Amino acid sequence: MLPSSLPPLPTPPALPLLPSPHLLFLGDISEPGYAKTAFGLRDWAPQRCIGEFRCAGGTVSAGLPAMTPQQAAARGARSLVIGVANAGGVIPESWIEPLLQALHAGLDIISGMHVRIASIARLREAADALGRQLIDVRVPPPGIAVATGAPRSGKRLLTMGTDCALGKKYTALALARAFAERGVDVDFRASGQTGILIAGRGMPMDAVVSDFAAGAAEMLSPAAAEDHWDVIEGQGSLFHPAYAGVALALLHGSQPDVVVICHQPGRRHMLGYPAYPLPSIEDTIALALQLGQRTRAGIRCGGVSLDTSQLDPASAAALLDSESQRLGCAVADPMRGGPAFEQLLRQCLG
Amino acid sequence: MLPSSLPPLPTPPALPLLPSPHLLFLGDISEPGYAKTAFGLRDWAPQRCIGEFRCAGGTVSAGLPAMTPQQAAARGARSLVIGVANAGGVIPESWIEPLLQALHAGLDIISGMHVRIASIARLREAADALGRQLIDVRVPPPGIAVATGAPRSGKRLLTMGTDCALGKKYTALALARAFAERGVDVDFRASGQTGILIAGRGMPMDAVVSDFAAGAAEMLSPAAAEDHWDVIEGQGSLFHPAYAGVALALLHGSQPDVVVICHQPGRRHMLGYPAYPLPSIEDTIALALQLGQRTRAGIRCGGVSLDTSQLDPASAAALLDSESQRLGCAVADPMRGGPAFEQLLRQCLG
Repeated sequence: MLPSSLPPLPTPPALPLLPSPHLLFLGDISEPGYAKTAFGLRDWAPQRCIGEFRCAGGTVSAGLPAMTPQQAAARGARSLVIGVANAGGVIPESWIEPLLQALHAGLDIISGMHVRIASIARLREAADALGRQLIDVRVPPPGIAVATGAPRSGKRLLTMGTDCALGKKYTALALARAFAERGVDVDFRASGQTGILIAGRGMPMDAVVSDFAAGAAEMLSPAAAEDHWDVIEGQGSLFHPAYAGVALALLHGSQPDVVVICHQPGRRHMLGYPAYPLPSIEDTIALALQLGQRTRAGIRCGGVSLDTSQLDPASAAALLDSESQRLGCAVADPMRGGPAFEQLLRQCLG
Repeated sequence: MLPSSLPPLPTPPALPLLPSPHLLFLGDISEPGYAKTAFGLRDWAPQRCIGEFRCAGGTVSAGLPAMTPQQAAARGARSLVIGVANAGGVIPESWIEPLLQALHAGLDIISGMHVRIASIARLREAADALGRQLIDVRVPPPGIAVATGAPRSGKRLLTMGTDCALGKKYTALALARAFAERGVDVDFRASGQTGILIAGRGMPMDAVVSDFAAGAAEMLSPAAAEDHWDVIEGQGSLFHPAYAGVALALLHGSQPDVVVICHQPGRRHMLGYPAYPLPSIEDTIALALQLGQRTRAGIRCGGVSLDTSQLDPASAAALLDSESQRLGCAVADPMRGGPAFEQLLRQCLG
């Protein structure tokens, strides 16, 4: 806990890129809910997804061309991504042969599952013999330093939330895509496993040792050109009884110029914590700015992102409008786009 | 980062106790500054320290009887504690033979150094053959769960600080000792490596993966009898650009009834971070109560602990008095005791 006596690193080391294009592995599942990672990759990184590959018993499709690992490799694929999770978060025995097939075809294997794929002896031995990589994206990279707190160049936006699981990743992805479409030099910076698979790189903040969490956030969004934007995927909530520390470390290390607060209308308490009422949007904005100013003077709120997927279009539009008037800032659902989203983009870019 | 769907643990598992009494190993150092761990053990846990043991070249003493591992074992010692650090934080080759000697004498070895002692092959092989333990206290215990945020019985006090390294551990130790002397049922709860060695158990908060940091704090200070106090060693500072996340996780997970704010008069900026001015004591109190009330309604400040070791007694007494009047609460230097400390104890116990 003592500050390091080492001189601060002027620029954190770059994060390694995941090898792509990918072949998406859908395993043997028959329940689409387990394929969220594959669907996320298809939706947000289609240019990196060459095809899909199931094993016996599987019925779920991501709508991509079906192909074997050999066929995918012939078309340029460099890795197989495990695009599904199952109930236990483990690699079932029935997946081993198809995964070995991918290694023999010349593909690396990328996993975001809880179990470390490199801990499975048959896969590790085959990968070693073939010179292939087994990449667990929930393992932080080496060389994470204690945060320096030093200001760095470039512009940064961090999505934050009233709670977990209400659109911080999708909001960041949508903002980054819209920035790029408007000619802004932008990178999406992933802080969780699905985001990392979509972005091809990132920092699994939930797996970093706590003393290095703010330093990991500094490494995730390094110094950049003055007109460059990093749009950073937030984690947790400053009001969360379990994850507030991660949210604060990510806020401090990100040093954002702008925060966008994400919320799901109608949610009454923290997901899985019925005794903890959801904080208000305005309290969440105020606390983010209060704490964020410690490492980034001049931090401001670019607006609010609401997940209105449970409302019909007219109700959603009415809610976005009334919330924008009530809060005095841009309020949009990035998945719906439209004038409200245009206003949010303008307020973020400043 | 998603909330666990598992039911919350009603009571976190107990932390294992370190085997004692100890023989303190002072290595081959000649600079007393490297022996802080041994001195801390001698000062705060003398009943667990049987003697000290140096190897060739060492000149530093903790003032305990010198003895070999065989002699210590004959007097009941169960472990050798590495009581020194060196510049690199590594175990030098010259320590291996004395450490092997301890294993052969029947002692376990306990280390708080950065390098994992169990990673040194010669020591691990000898320990395995002899049935001895190699205990690295910076390794978190298994089974740490995500924080539940559920209220729990017993009373808890957390020391917090305007910065690192200004008396949070010594204040917690002094308060716990004074509580015990007044007949209060109390446990000191260590959150860092030196505190863990002193207490014989605890939680190395700085080594816990960030998603589990608040859960680790819940495990550190479990539910207890209603009149029992846990006095918890704080870490970092809510204003620290690198460690605020750890401080917040420890605050949320500890659910303290009372916080005591620690400060070193005259410190102008965060240690090692000259661009970051020290927060005021009153801002530190206010933020601790603001954020702490999320998991512990009714949290209050018991007072302020100042490290006045750099002042003469008259100047120290004058400062404690003027700060107490300025802040409107008890302000004491626990190392000096006296009426100011008595007032702090009364305000803490409520």
